[in-house]
Amino acid sequence: MEMHAFGRLTAVEVARRRLMGAVRPIERTEEVPVDAAFGRVSARTVLSPFPIPTFARTTWDGYALRSEDTRTARRDRPVTLRIVGEVFAEQAYRRRLGPGETVAIATGGAIPRGADAVEIFEEVERDDGRIRLRRAVRPGERISTPGHDFARGARLVREGEELSATALGTLAACGIASVRVFARPVVAILPNGNELLPPGASPKEGRIFESNNATIAAVVTSAGGIARPEPPLPDDPDRIERALRRALRTADLVLATGGSSVGERDHLPRLLPKVGDLLFHGIAVRAGKPTLAARAGRRIVLGLPGHPTSCLVNMYWLVLPALRRLARRPGPGWTPGWAVLGSDAVAPTPGLATVVPLRFEGGRAYSTFRGSSVITSLSGATAFAMLPPGRRIVRAGSRLRVFHLDPPLGPGGPASPETRAGANR
Amino acid sequence: MEMHAFGRLTAVEVARRRLMGAVRPIERTEEVPVDAAFGRVSARTVLSPFPIPTFARTTWDGYALRSEDTRTARRDRPVTLRIVGEVFAEQAYRRRLGPGETVAIATGGAIPRGADAVEIFEEVERDDGRIRLRRAVRPGERISTPGHDFARGARLVREGEELSATALGTLAACGIASVRVFARPVVAILPNGNELLPPGASPKEGRIFESNNATIAAVVTSAGGIARPEPPLPDDPDRIERALRRALRTADLVLATGGSSVGERDHLPRLLPKVGDLLFHGIAVRAGKPTLAARAGRRIVLGLPGHPTSCLVNMYWLVLPALRRLARRPGPGWTPGWAVLGSDAVAPTPGLATVVPLRFEGGRAYSTFRGSSVITSLSGATAFAMLPPGRRIVRAGSRLRVFHLDPPLGPGGPASPETRAGANR
Repeated sequence: MEMHAFGRLTAVEVARRRLMGAVRPIERTEEVPVDAAFGRVSARTVLSPFPIPTFARTTWDGYALRSEDTRTARRDRPVTLRIVGEVFAEQAYRRRLGPGETVAIATGGAIPRGADAVEIFEEVERDDGRIRLRRAVRPGERISTPGHDFARGARLVREGEELSATALGTLAACGIASVRVFARPVVAILPNGNELLPPGASPKEGRIFESNNATIAAVVTSAGGIARPEPPLPDDPDRIERALRRALRTADLVLATGGSSVGERDHLPRLLPKVGDLLFHGIAVRAGKPTLAARAGRRIVLGLPGHPTSCLVNMYWLVLPALRRLARRPGPGWTPGWAVLGSDAVAPTPGLATVVPLRFEGGRAYSTFRGSSVITSLSGATAFAMLPPGRRIVRAGSRLRVFHLDPPLGPGGPASPETRAGANR
Repeated sequence: MEMHAFGRLTAVEVARRRLMGAVRPIERTEEVPVDAAFGRVSARTVLSPFPIPTFARTTWDGYALRSEDTRTARRDRPVTLRIVGEVFAEQAYRRRLGPGETVAIATGGAIPRGADAVEIFEEVERDDGRIRLRRAVRPGERISTPGHDFARGARLVREGEELSATALGTLAACGIASVRVFARPVVAILPNGNELLPPGASPKEGRIFESNNATIAAVVTSAGGIARPEPPLPDDPDRIERALRRALRTADLVLATGGSSVGERDHLPRLLPKVGDLLFHGIAVRAGKPTLAARAGRRIVLGLPGHPTSCLVNMYWLVLPALRRLARRPGPGWTPGWAVLGSDAVAPTPGLATVVPLRFEGGRAYSTFRGSSVITSLSGATAFAMLPPGRRIVRAGSRLRVFHLDPPLGPGGPASPETRAGANR
């Protein structure tokens, strides 16, 4: 069994910068109805095609009138107007309002020509086809004029904006039925390793169930991407190379797992330079050292460690920011903050930075790490710390720079309890 | 134009309690692959079908050996073992290890019978088919025994749990390929009103573009539901009733918009008692008074105001908690907290509670309200306050109970900037 040594390991920040520098934000776009575009990223700056409202309309149920007719109205000296018609919301009163005339009008109704104000039902006395007003109504009162909400050409949405409920309502209110958004990046996930069984198969000695597809797909979804997990491949360099090349033709990012270290059956370090330009191989970090990346044209292919915890930890600190840049989402996917450690955190390997997954309890942070092969090493973790190389132990009670994982963005994905609690101010 | 008065208005808390009490959490389930189940809600408590690992395996690359053979090894008195084979991850060494024998073994490889410990490559001197060890290896060292990670029958996921990346990785690692989750509730959205034009149509006097479909669909998606917006219907009670009945057969919740007040063309107050049992009509709240709800068997139908801001505000404080309960999501969709007002907030109508949409700037909260017909009244709002009835003004500088909207859960939906900042501790 032949083992090669890693060359010089790449520092955490260098690896991240190289990867981020190589990622090209997605250019593909698609047209989506506004009532199905929630959370998508607009690919255009959108201007209002019309002044909104497109016509003068009342903002209340009431009576449209000529304000000058009410000028002399006082509490003890009412003015009387004659009701000559009524306007439901969608109708227009066709005649021009004459002196002393009024039209009953429902909220949103078009103001008849001649009228310039509206008095609400509750403020008038009505009987026998007439109303009495006891106050002067100001010109323009309770009227929304054309373009009051949005001028024609007003900017409704910026390119790159994540479409909120309000933004989508604004587009619809301006008559826009669909919006051009950036496509969600497609991320191929290619597990490899003779030891891998697909979940659902019968257990075999020496074989383990492939689980990185599930965790990586979750992170990809949370970042707004489309995960395309593939069944595990054996340690066959030709098959892996063919799978890599096929994935690079159809996916925006390729994440291969396993076979990323320096053993003779770790094929990715020899294959990635064949399909692209190597960005790094081997990161000075624990867990997760056997990680490599290459740029292949506009695309990136990463080789991630097969150990479930190492793989997922690297997804969070290294790959998530790249995924978000690819998907044109702002920020790295986590937010820096400070925390007080509830128990000692250990950096076991000199020369390597250490990622410590953290859960919070009673306002303190505790490592959840149980070993890189056990996926539950990340159960309940909502943040992580990155201990610099050379530090061996950080004592309970120390204040520590931490990175809170942002609430997942995936369909119906839960916001983390910690971040929710963070909104409690 | 005939107008009826509202009957006795229902207090905000009473309306919310009645609605929440009437909502039945969804019972429908579906089977989803674990690599596509991120953020879904598990419909089952899932136990591990196997002990994991299913066999004793090494956690490092190294040499499997009999620890008793190394008992006398010291720095100056090495023990020599003979390499009799090698085990890649997926293979099993078929013979039983005899005294003085060792087998090279890759991380994850099955421990040969007879062996009970592993020493790592870096700690031994190897030459000519032999290794020399200079320390005693403890029994069990670097071995993960069957069931070490998960005993057979260990609880992997609880019923009702939102499936995180780690939970899904755990299921996969235990050999589980798919998971039964609660279906996403289907929410029909039925706008009605003669004045409504579908976005994309040409503007007409007296007509406005329907925009509640877009905002409601966004909130439904954010709560983990499936929005099914329909084109606007005219003010025709027969057509509206048919649409309501059809929607109640195929949707879990029906949200009708417009026609919810007390005008003669507001048909919902007459139709809802025909299709179900009225829970309330008219809430003592501004904006959003003309809101009603009925229970129809296991389903709920709500009539929401047509005014875009009134509609969306009611979606947030009233309907979102009901949607989340229906979708079996924890919490109301917002988190209580305190804020200091940056400018006065006004409750303009005696007897009505007032919902104040709030944005945050420089650590203070400002109302975004510009009028109930303008959807931009909610632009940038990430929280709201509920001023109790009778209070007329809350001064700038006052501390106020507020409700932070949780970050959207929709596909790729953005976490709100305020809540992100909240993670900054």
